[in-house]
Amino acid sequence: MTARLIGQPAPALDVSRWFNADGPVLLENLRGQVVVIEAFQMLCPGCVAHGLPQAQRIQAHFPAMSVQVLGLHTVFEHHAAMLPVSLEAFLHEYRITFPVGVDTAGTGDLPKTMETYGLRGTPSLLLIDRNGHLRAAHFGQVSDLQIGAEIAMLLSELAGCTEDGCPVPATG
Amino acid sequence: MTARLIGQPAPALDVSRWFNADGPVLLENLRGQVVVIEAFQMLCPGCVAHGLPQAQRIQAHFPAMSVQVLGLHTVFEHHAAMLPVSLEAFLHEYRITFPVGVDTAGTGDLPKTMETYGLRGTPSLLLIDRNGHLRAAHFGQVSDLQIGAEIAMLLSELAGCTEDGCPVPATG
Amino acid sequence: MTARLIGQPAPALDVSRWFNADGPVLLENLRGQVVVIEAFQMLCPGCVAHGLPQAQRIQAHFPAMSVQVLGLHTVFEHHAAMLPVSLEAFLHEYRITFPVGVDTAGTGDLPKTMETYGLRGTPSLLLIDRNGHLRAAHFGQVSDLQIGAEIAMLLSELAGCTEDGCPVPATG
Amino acid sequence: MTARLIGQPAPALDVSRWFNADGPVLLENLRGQVVVIEAFQMLCPGCVAHGLPQAQRIQAHFPAMSVQVLGLHTVFEHHAAMLPVSLEAFLHEYRITFPVGVDTAGTGDLPKTMETYGLRGTPSLLLIDRNGHLRAAHFGQVSDLQIGAEIAMLLSELAGCTEDGCPVPATG
Repeated sequence: MTARLIGQPAPALDVSRWFNADGPVLLENLRGQVVVIEAFQMLCPGCVAHGLPQAQRIQAHFPAMSVQVLGLHTVFEHHAAMLPVSLEAFLHEYRITFPVGVDTAGTGDLPKTMETYGLRGTPSLLLIDRNGHLRAAHFGQVSDLQIGAEIAMLLSELAGCTEDGCPVPATG
Repeated sequence: MTARLIGQPAPALDVSRWFNADGPVLLENLRGQVVVIEAFQMLCPGCVAHGLPQAQRIQAHFPAMSVQVLGLHTVFEHHAAMLPVSLEAFLHEYRITFPVGVDTAGTGDLPKTMETYGLRGTPSLLLIDRNGHLRAAHFGQVSDLQIGAEIAMLLSELAGCTEDGCPVPATG
Repeated sequence: MTARLIGQPAPALDVSRWFNADGPVLLENLRGQVVVIEAFQMLCPGCVAHGLPQAQRIQAHFPAMSVQVLGLHTVFEHHAAMLPVSLEAFLHEYRITFPVGVDTAGTGDLPKTMETYGLRGTPSLLLIDRNGHLRAAHFGQVSDLQIGAEIAMLLSELAGCTEDGCPVPATG
Repeated sequence: MTARLIGQPAPALDVSRWFNADGPVLLENLRGQVVVIEAFQMLCPGCVAHGLPQAQRIQAHFPAMSVQVLGLHTVFEHHAAMLPVSLEAFLHEYRITFPVGVDTAGTGDLPKTMETYGLRGTPSLLLIDRNGHLRAAHFGQVSDLQIGAEIAMLLSELAGCTEDGCPVPATG
């Protein structure tokens, strides 16, 4: 279940390969930005029809300095059909330009990040606040009105501040 | 131009008749809520296809205690074709349940509220903050992502506070 | 019920006023063409969203010499809301350019042509063959694939021929 | 160019593997039926969004005895990304149940059937009449109204008859 993670520091992404990025994308380097993660499979019809176009609209609407959109290819079925060589062509053909990480294969069918986050399936949309805390996880279709509102709520929060207040930054 | 009004107290609505309401709806009674006004004409195709369905989605998504959706029938052409008797049937057939005011006829083609607000046409979407200030005016189509974000930004502001700070309420 | 009329000569349209036409449009003058009649009400959401755009697509796709599209405003409720003055503005705003007849008011709520044809409601799409026989009547939404096929079937029939054969034209 | 083939006997499909079929599907065994061939690539966005759903609507609307829908996977780019193992998962996830043939790889990028037919790209929709003649080839999006009409025109032709007349079948 993702529920227990809501409000907690977002676990690191366990990614075996990144596309559309110069080197690994680390969540800890994205503090200060709201991070939107679209977890998808390239052969999942709901991801292609709804989830990924929504992620592209989010990328187009919000300034990149404020909102960073990431894709996470969380393959949990038909593994041989969705290898990185196929994903690469898919990203090219569908004009997806935000960074996309390949979720590292696990010991069972579920890839590692998908298991850590307890995702229910694809598409899943994750929202991480400016302080790196996971704040929302949506499985399936969710309206633009709702996602727009949720992102704006996170944008209106000051980095460094949490729901508990604005702490003095820890020093070494 | 509406631009000069942005950030100013929203002018009163000059309405000759209300539908879906028990008596006149006054903006000053809606302090503390974000107010969304959909200015439309019942025979405007863009209003029927985009503007009004979006207003209905806003009404459905946000709690009524936080966000009040209003319609404003701003007829500026084909006046004889869009009399209140036609509007009433229209609201019934399109299942519009939020309060809708008929913008009072002016001396020329433009009705009075439309003229006061300097609206560019229909559909127009107006956003008023918890303190009764006009904060945005959109003419034509605007995305759900954007409207969702703008409403949430206004919701995140405390009533009584403005961009200048949080003043002590004036007393008599 | 329309069912009993299928295959029979299409009854004359009882129309009190025509728009987008130079004088009355008579079915008997349209022999040799396939006639598509879109029966609608201007305040019927399904007509505005589906029926009328489909009629416009039919008009745009098939040559006017082969297929004549007609509208029939069959008001059976909210009569005062859909008077000809409102219909005229509606046709203008929705860019409807095919001839539209106002179905003559009856003694009850149903207008006369609607009653004669036994229509079940709006939108209804009627198809009349090259010989003036009613061949199909659809209530509600019907797919473009189906309508395209039905019109083509009627176009493939020779005028003068019927399902019974090709009679020698009667002479006086 | 496909144009030179219109009206000619449709060339045989050169297929290396069939899905959703018990053994090879041969055009010569489909005489008497109208055959609709959807040529596509599984990573072509226009195929996924428009071409394949239209083929599924055709399959659903017309009786299988009259109209046979076939898919043809004509990969001409990203070959390693669209191997049969990926296609198989794709067909499963998108609920495609009509027979789909993998166009045999050629010496260059173009697969063999695609080259023989001179297809301009994907999606392409081919229509073959009851006598096995190629009658239409559409590249890109084409409306349901048009395809419905074209299929119906072919259905209205008698098998064995051509535009030249109805020949006595040849005997051995």
